[in-house]
Amino acid sequence: MSIISVREALDLTLGNVNRLPQEEVLLLESRGRILAKDLVADADLPPFTRSTMDGYAVRSQDIQETPATLEVAGYVPAGANPNFALKPRQAAKIMTGAPLPRKADAVQQIEKTQNVDDGMKVVILEAVGPGTNVAVQGSDAHIGDTVATAGTYVSPAVIGLLASAGADVVTVYSRPSIAILATGDELVDITSKPLSGQIRNSNNYMLHTQVTQVGAYASLLGIARDHKAYIKNRVAQGLRHDLLLVTGGASVGDLDLVGEVLEDFGFQILFNKVSIKPGKPLIVAKAEKTLIFGMPGNPVSSATVFEVFVRPAIRKMMGFPSYHNQTVSALLTQHFFNRSKRENYHPAVTWYEEGRFYCRPLMSRGSGDLTTYSLSNSYLICPMEKTEAHEGEPIEVMLRSDFYYH
Amino acid sequence: MSIISVREALDLTLGNVNRLPQEEVLLLESRGRILAKDLVADADLPPFTRSTMDGYAVRSQDIQETPATLEVAGYVPAGANPNFALKPRQAAKIMTGAPLPRKADAVQQIEKTQNVDDGMKVVILEAVGPGTNVAVQGSDAHIGDTVATAGTYVSPAVIGLLASAGADVVTVYSRPSIAILATGDELVDITSKPLSGQIRNSNNYMLHTQVTQVGAYASLLGIARDHKAYIKNRVAQGLRHDLLLVTGGASVGDLDLVGEVLEDFGFQILFNKVSIKPGKPLIVAKAEKTLIFGMPGNPVSSATVFEVFVRPAIRKMMGFPSYHNQTVSALLTQHFFNRSKRENYHPAVTWYEEGRFYCRPLMSRGSGDLTTYSLSNSYLICPMEKTEAHEGEPIEVMLRSDFYYH
Repeated sequence: MSIISVREALDLTLGNVNRLPQEEVLLLESRGRILAKDLVADADLPPFTRSTMDGYAVRSQDIQETPATLEVAGYVPAGANPNFALKPRQAAKIMTGAPLPRKADAVQQIEKTQNVDDGMKVVILEAVGPGTNVAVQGSDAHIGDTVATAGTYVSPAVIGLLASAGADVVTVYSRPSIAILATGDELVDITSKPLSGQIRNSNNYMLHTQVTQVGAYASLLGIARDHKAYIKNRVAQGLRHDLLLVTGGASVGDLDLVGEVLEDFGFQILFNKVSIKPGKPLIVAKAEKTLIFGMPGNPVSSATVFEVFVRPAIRKMMGFPSYHNQTVSALLTQHFFNRSKRENYHPAVTWYEEGRFYCRPLMSRGSGDLTTYSLSNSYLICPMEKTEAHEGEPIEVMLRSDFYYH
Repeated sequence: MSIISVREALDLTLGNVNRLPQEEVLLLESRGRILAKDLVADADLPPFTRSTMDGYAVRSQDIQETPATLEVAGYVPAGANPNFALKPRQAAKIMTGAPLPRKADAVQQIEKTQNVDDGMKVVILEAVGPGTNVAVQGSDAHIGDTVATAGTYVSPAVIGLLASAGADVVTVYSRPSIAILATGDELVDITSKPLSGQIRNSNNYMLHTQVTQVGAYASLLGIARDHKAYIKNRVAQGLRHDLLLVTGGASVGDLDLVGEVLEDFGFQILFNKVSIKPGKPLIVAKAEKTLIFGMPGNPVSSATVFEVFVRPAIRKMMGFPSYHNQTVSALLTQHFFNRSKRENYHPAVTWYEEGRFYCRPLMSRGSGDLTTYSLSNSYLICPMEKTEAHEGEPIEVMLRSDFYYH
């Protein structure tokens, strides 16, 4: 199987995952998900014509000449249901959110009125036109209108809209379940002190965090030894999940154990080498209901492969209409050499200043160098055929999802 | 008390919240938090000099003329601890991640070698210099080095670094606990069908989602009736939390019930009116250990007040070194009038295209209009004194935190 480009690998990956089925969740659980059904207003929004101010509901034609003294016909607090109509030269004291009495068409705010005769009368000091300080029934949406369409991302504002429409249960696309497995005889868990020749497993924890950040479920399958029986056993467990991310084990003896296990299972190998730096030895295989990523063991490589290939796949499964990674154009603040002959995703610090993004590639000591990588918030993307980029040149940058939080 | 500017209100708010105490959490729970202690490497990173390729460990001076035939002195799989040294013209078969035998200083990848004599010897086909395909012990960090400083945001990459340093328990700043209370006789819960004059409470759910999105704990205190006894009772419950967000009830009778209750408790009122649209009637009061926000009842107003004032306060409490909201400069795609005589945070759709942000203000029907607000991903910020902004003009825009997810 020959090496393929990042674009081809991404297309193959995304072509082999589908949007997951719909499910019903409680309103607060729908945050960050994608609506699977249109939301239809079950009543007018607002459901009645209401005051947006504390003041006096009036018939605006009565107060075109001010000061105008009106009889106070009633008091309407929020939550009340006023069953009276204003007669000419009558007003009603009204609170924010309260329904207007019939025949009232405007509200003058309390600061521009004066109550007289112990509240029996009110003097309106300034005229208001019809509709002033009033939210008219159905002006936001009419009953039966679609107020949010299927495919909408559930932001806090959409949560508010769903709440106001009484959607205590919401239909969204399911979140994928992602199993994570590390392989390697050199790996020990983080609670162990590594012996000589051993290192701690960091990939499982990093990938768990990346998966959770996108909004999917992460399930840790631990560390498998570099033996086919171990790897087979754990891969079989992974097949209950939508995606299985395996790191390392892609190189033992002259053999690629993970690739061999995937072939033993009879899974279709979509590709096993991508022209990307870091992350070249990436295997993607398709089981009956699980897409399997055999990722490099180096932490920066696996983290990068996740961001470039797995993240958009998860977003597609979650129903995001736009699931590709966003990039921006940034000015390079120092020279960059791409000697990799591959598409290079290089750890960088990017910042926004006075209308522009700027990008500083970090001096990394390679794909094992988490110390440097942890200082980055983005990837400088240098195309395969481009061997260098100059200071001041605009270059494509992929911002990681926590970019704005640094 | 007189009306104050957004800047003054924000300074007063932030001046009255402090970073919370440190706490120890499990590694995976530290995601999105801020490190409270420097992370010091408990061993060299990498802990031993290891191969970054499958191939043959060599003494590079032996293979400056190629092809070079070397005796294979051993095999080092990952996880092994090779207790031998290469003699001149010896090599060792080695796997990615495995420690180099003593005296070896480089690795030639397997593809550039040929094994002969049934694996007793290997022909190295191309020369490599010292250090090639090798990660030297301590090259990322030495034991005792600070690899992440207090104040670092815990991204997935930092999780990886913490894991590799064996930090199964991590010291971070605590997350604030935020109580959320709605007030208003017109409000019913989302599971109820509103009667005439009633509307469903959307603020609690929207604020819960906003709080959770920033990374704090949200605690719903339900709906309080427009009576001082009810509000007092719930406010007292809220005093167990770091922040208390109260919506509505800022206007009943001629009185401000929430403000009155806060004064009855003897809390210091920091301000009660801000020159912002929407959100002008914002009260912020300081109890012994709780900062209380009396926010407008209109959902767009309370959501906006949250983003502008509460969000940076929460981030400051969580220990974010930079807790202010970020803004970008965007080109306005249509004329905008600011008739409010206040600093205007107007719902907008912002997008990035060919190196620039563009911003389209939405035609909103006011602060009750969640339908329009839910389509926005940002706020156009128009200063108080600026009465209009022209198409094509650069304008300041605040991106909401889910901007990149739309």
